[in-house]
Amino acid sequence: MIQDIPIHHRTIGVNFNQSGDATTTVWAPAANQVEITFEGKKLELQKQKSGYWQLQTTELNPGTNYKFVLDGKTELPDPASLFQPEGVHGPSQTIAITQFAWTDHSWKNLSLRDYILYELHTGTFTPEGTFAAIEQKLDYLKELGVNAIEVMPVAQFPGNHNWGYDGVFTFAVQNSYGGAKGLQHLINTCHQKGIAVVLDVVYNHLGPEGNYLGAYGPYFTNKYHTPWGNAINFDDASCEGVRRYFIENALMWFRDFHVDALRLDAVHAIKDASPTHILQEIKMHVDRLMKETGRTHYLIVELDLNDTRYIKSQEEQGYGMDAQWIDEFHHALRVTATQEKTGYYSDFTGIEHLAKAYQDAYVYDGQYSLHRKKDFGMKVESNRGQQFVVFAQNHDQVGNRMLGERISHLVSFEMQKLLAGAVLVSPYLPMLFMGEEWAETHPFLYFVSHSDQELIDAVRKGRKEEFAAFHAQGEAPDPMAEETFLHSKLQWELMNTEPHFTLWMYYKELIELRKQLPALYELNRKHVKAIPNSKMQTLFLH
Amino acid sequence: MIQDIPIHHRTIGVNFNQSGDATTTVWAPAANQVEITFEGKKLELQKQKSGYWQLQTTELNPGTNYKFVLDGKTELPDPASLFQPEGVHGPSQTIAITQFAWTDHSWKNLSLRDYILYELHTGTFTPEGTFAAIEQKLDYLKELGVNAIEVMPVAQFPGNHNWGYDGVFTFAVQNSYGGAKGLQHLINTCHQKGIAVVLDVVYNHLGPEGNYLGAYGPYFTNKYHTPWGNAINFDDASCEGVRRYFIENALMWFRDFHVDALRLDAVHAIKDASPTHILQEIKMHVDRLMKETGRTHYLIVELDLNDTRYIKSQEEQGYGMDAQWIDEFHHALRVTATQEKTGYYSDFTGIEHLAKAYQDAYVYDGQYSLHRKKDFGMKVESNRGQQFVVFAQNHDQVGNRMLGERISHLVSFEMQKLLAGAVLVSPYLPMLFMGEEWAETHPFLYFVSHSDQELIDAVRKGRKEEFAAFHAQGEAPDPMAEETFLHSKLQWELMNTEPHFTLWMYYKELIELRKQLPALYELNRKHVKAIPNSKMQTLFLH
Repeated sequence: MIQDIPIHHRTIGVNFNQSGDATTTVWAPAANQVEITFEGKKLELQKQKSGYWQLQTTELNPGTNYKFVLDGKTELPDPASLFQPEGVHGPSQTIAITQFAWTDHSWKNLSLRDYILYELHTGTFTPEGTFAAIEQKLDYLKELGVNAIEVMPVAQFPGNHNWGYDGVFTFAVQNSYGGAKGLQHLINTCHQKGIAVVLDVVYNHLGPEGNYLGAYGPYFTNKYHTPWGNAINFDDASCEGVRRYFIENALMWFRDFHVDALRLDAVHAIKDASPTHILQEIKMHVDRLMKETGRTHYLIVELDLNDTRYIKSQEEQGYGMDAQWIDEFHHALRVTATQEKTGYYSDFTGIEHLAKAYQDAYVYDGQYSLHRKKDFGMKVESNRGQQFVVFAQNHDQVGNRMLGERISHLVSFEMQKLLAGAVLVSPYLPMLFMGEEWAETHPFLYFVSHSDQELIDAVRKGRKEEFAAFHAQGEAPDPMAEETFLHSKLQWELMNTEPHFTLWMYYKELIELRKQLPALYELNRKHVKAIPNSKMQTLFLH
Repeated sequence: MIQDIPIHHRTIGVNFNQSGDATTTVWAPAANQVEITFEGKKLELQKQKSGYWQLQTTELNPGTNYKFVLDGKTELPDPASLFQPEGVHGPSQTIAITQFAWTDHSWKNLSLRDYILYELHTGTFTPEGTFAAIEQKLDYLKELGVNAIEVMPVAQFPGNHNWGYDGVFTFAVQNSYGGAKGLQHLINTCHQKGIAVVLDVVYNHLGPEGNYLGAYGPYFTNKYHTPWGNAINFDDASCEGVRRYFIENALMWFRDFHVDALRLDAVHAIKDASPTHILQEIKMHVDRLMKETGRTHYLIVELDLNDTRYIKSQEEQGYGMDAQWIDEFHHALRVTATQEKTGYYSDFTGIEHLAKAYQDAYVYDGQYSLHRKKDFGMKVESNRGQQFVVFAQNHDQVGNRMLGERISHLVSFEMQKLLAGAVLVSPYLPMLFMGEEWAETHPFLYFVSHSDQELIDAVRKGRKEEFAAFHAQGEAPDPMAEETFLHSKLQWELMNTEPHFTLWMYYKELIELRKQLPALYELNRKHVKAIPNSKMQTLFLH
C-alpha cells in the first residue's frame, strides 16, 4: 500500500516551517490525552485521524528540550526525536533540521558500479570517535582511493559505546558522535571531496534499552519471532503508523542529510506479509523523492536469504533494492584462506565455492546446507554484478569472533594481499573494513555501554553462548569494559611503519588498477570465468 | 526448491509394491534407532540420508497393526499412517492403497468454471455419518444440480465427532467415516455419476490431541505464531522432511484417491519465506502428476489476505493456485440481508460493498479496515471469475455462531431466495452449504470429541471468549455433548414439507438457469456492472 506521505518534509516529531513555527506530531493510537512539556510549560495536542496527535505552536524554538505526557502519566521522549542530548532516557531536543547550510549543490552521486566502499565505525575509527574527526581523515581515504564511506548505525543508542545496532531513536543521531548537525557537516564535506556516504540503518528491531516506542503504540507484534524478540509490526493491526515511521526515516536521511545510499541491516528479519512489502514501499517513496529532487539514492540490503526477490526490479515483482551484501563470498574466501570449519563456515569447501561465488554470486542456490539443515537459496539470473557487495572482512566477521581478530591476525602477510586482490578484482562492489588496508593490529571487539544491570548480564551470557557454537576457547573480553572499546580503536600511527605501509600501498594500487581497467570496473558477472583447482589451491579468473 | 519426489507412489509410511513386499519409511532425523513393531515382532529400520529410516520386508501384510519405536522407548503411531483403526492414540494399520478397483476410467474432471459446489460434513450430512451413506445421496445431489461435492476434512481426528480441523494424521482417513477404502469407493461412485470431489485439507496446523509428529522431527517452528500455536515448519532448519510430508499428501489424494480438487484450509496461516513457497512447490508437483496421468486437478485455497500473489500463475511470480474463497462476498451479502454489525461484519456497509464484490472480487483492495486496523488488500487485475468461490453461508459462517444458526434462521423466506440468487448469478464459483437448499432447521454447531480433560476445558473457554467479540448473549451449547453433534445433523424428511420443498425447487431451478444462460455461466467479472442503490436497498446487475 502506498501511503499518502509528503516527501518534502517530515510529518512526525517536531518540525519547523519557514517562519519558524513548530508543528508537533506524534502517533499514539491508544492514548486518550497527549501533552508536550517543555520549559515548565505543558500544552495539549489535538487528536487527528489514524491515531495521530498534533499541535501547532509558536512557543517551541529550535534547541528546546521536551517530552511527551501520555494520559497525564509518565513523561517520555519523542519516538521521532531528532536529538537526545542527555542520552536515551533523557528529554528530546528540537532541531531545525532543514536549516543546515548545504554547500554540496554540485555533488552528483556516483554510479553504483563505481562504488569502492569503506565500512567504518564512528566511535573507533578515530581517537576522538566523532563525525568531526572522520572529516579529518577524508583526504586520507581519497588518497587510498575509496569513494564511498559506509557509516555503521548512528541512531541514538544507550551510553557512548555501541556498534550501533542497539539504537532506539531511529531519527536521532547519536549525541556522543556529534548529533544531526555533525552528521550533516560530515556528509557535506564528503560530497565536496567527491566521496559518497552510505548510512547503515536498522529497520528489523530496536535495541533493548531505552526503547519507549511500545508505550506509544503497537510498534511490535508477536506474530513473528526474530533473534531480538518480537518483530517490528509491519503487517499486523495498526501497522500503518509503524510503516510510516520507517518510510519517513528513510526519506529523512536522503532528503535532510543528503545521504547517498542506505545499507539496511538484516532485512531477512523484517517480517511483512502485506501485498506490498515494506522494502518495496520504501523504494516507491524514495523513487518519488528522486523524481522530485533529481538526485540519485541507492538502497542496499544485508540479506541472509539468497533470494533475488529482494533485488529484482518492481516490474519483475521484486522489492527493487539496488544491491545486497553476499556474505557467502566472504565465507568461501575465508575458508579458502584459513580452512576454518566451525559454525557457518562448515558449509563452505573453499576454492570451489569461491569459484561459484565469482560466477553465480550465490554459493547456495538450491543445494542442501548442512549448517542450515535445509535446501537453501535460488539461482541468480538477470541481476548484475553491481547488485552484490563483497568483502574479505566486515564488522560482523571480525567483531563476532570472541577475540575480535581481523583477518590480518589470522593469515600471513602474503595471504592478506591475495584476499585484497580477490575482493578488488571481483565483478561485484568491493568493501573494505576500516584499518584492513594497513593490517591494523588492534582487534574490533563487541562493546556496549548499557546502564541496566539485568541487560548487561544477559548480554554477557548471550555472547558466551554464541561462541560455544564456534568451539571458542577461553574468556571473551567484557563488552561493558571501557578498555574493550578503547582496544578496538584504529592505531593510525601504524600505517607509517612496516609491514603496514607496504600493505597500504598494495591496496592503493589495487584500487587504482580497478578504476583503470575496464575488465575490472565493468561488473559483468557473465564475463567472468572462474576455474578452481583444488589440488593446487588455485583459482583462475578470466 | 523442487524436491526429488517420485510422483508414482508414496515414499513415506508403509507402501506395498506389485509383488506385495512392503517398504517402510519414516522421517526421524534426531533418532538413533528406529524399529517397527507388529504382531509381537520388532524389526529395525536402516538409516538413510536426510533423516529417513527404511526397511524392506516381506513380513508385513496389508491390514497389519503396527507402531514405530524411537530409540527403544515409547511406541508411536506412524506420522504417515493411512489408517488408525482404533483412533489417534492407537496403532497404525497398513493398507494396500493402490489396490482399489477403480472403475472411473472414463471420468474427466469438469472445467473449473462449471463447478457448482456443495460443501458437506460427512458426520452430519446423513444419519449414519459415513462415506457409504453419502453415496446414497448422490442421486439427490444430481437432481438438485450440483456437480462438485466439497468434503470437509477427513484426516483422522480424535474421537468420532469433529468438523475435521483437528486432524492429526494427514494421510489417514477418519476411521468412523469408513477409512481410505470408504473414501475411494465414494469418489469412484461420484465419478460414475458425473460428480467431482473436492477434499478439504489442513496444511496450516495439526490438532491439539494425538499429534505425535513432534516426537519424530521438527515439524513445528517457533519462528511464527498462528492462532493454533507454533507454525508448521515450512522454512526453518530441517524443513525438507516437513515439506515432503505435505507435498506427498497432496499427491496422494489426487493419485491414489482420484480427488478432483483440494481445498486448502486457511493458507494465510501457512508461513513460508523460502524462495519457493510451499504452495508453489505443491503446484509444481501436481503439474508433474497431471502431465504424467493426463488428468486435471485443481488447487483451491481459503485465503484471508486479498492478495493475488496466491492465485496468479507461476509465470507471473504467483503461487499458481487455481482459485480462492472470498469470504468478503459473503460478509457484504450477509450485512445487506441482516444488517449485522458485530465482529468482522463491522467492516461491511451492505449493498455498496456487495456491488464492489461483484465487480472487483475483493471488497477491501487497499482501503483502511476498521476491524483489521490497517489498510487491507490489493486490486484484482487479470484474475478471472472462476478463480473465486462465493457462498451465502458455509460451515464457518454458520458454525462459528454461538447457536450455529443457518441463514434460514435469521432471515425471511423471501430473503433466502434473494441470497440464493445473489450467489448463483454471480460471476464466481457458487457454493452451497449442505441443507441450505431446503432451509434446514437444525443448526450446525461446533462439536468435538476429545478425551483430554484439560483440552476440553480449554476448548470450552476458547469458544466463550470468541463469542464475546460478537457480544453474544446466553450460553453456548457444550461442544463435547453428543446431543450437540446429533442436533447438527440434517433432517432429510424436512425436504418434502413446506416451505422447504418450495425453496428446494427454487434452488434447483436457479442452478438449472445458471447452467443454461451464457450470461451466467461465462464467468467474466468485467462484463458485470453492479449499480447499488442504498436508499432502495437494491442492486442492479447487468
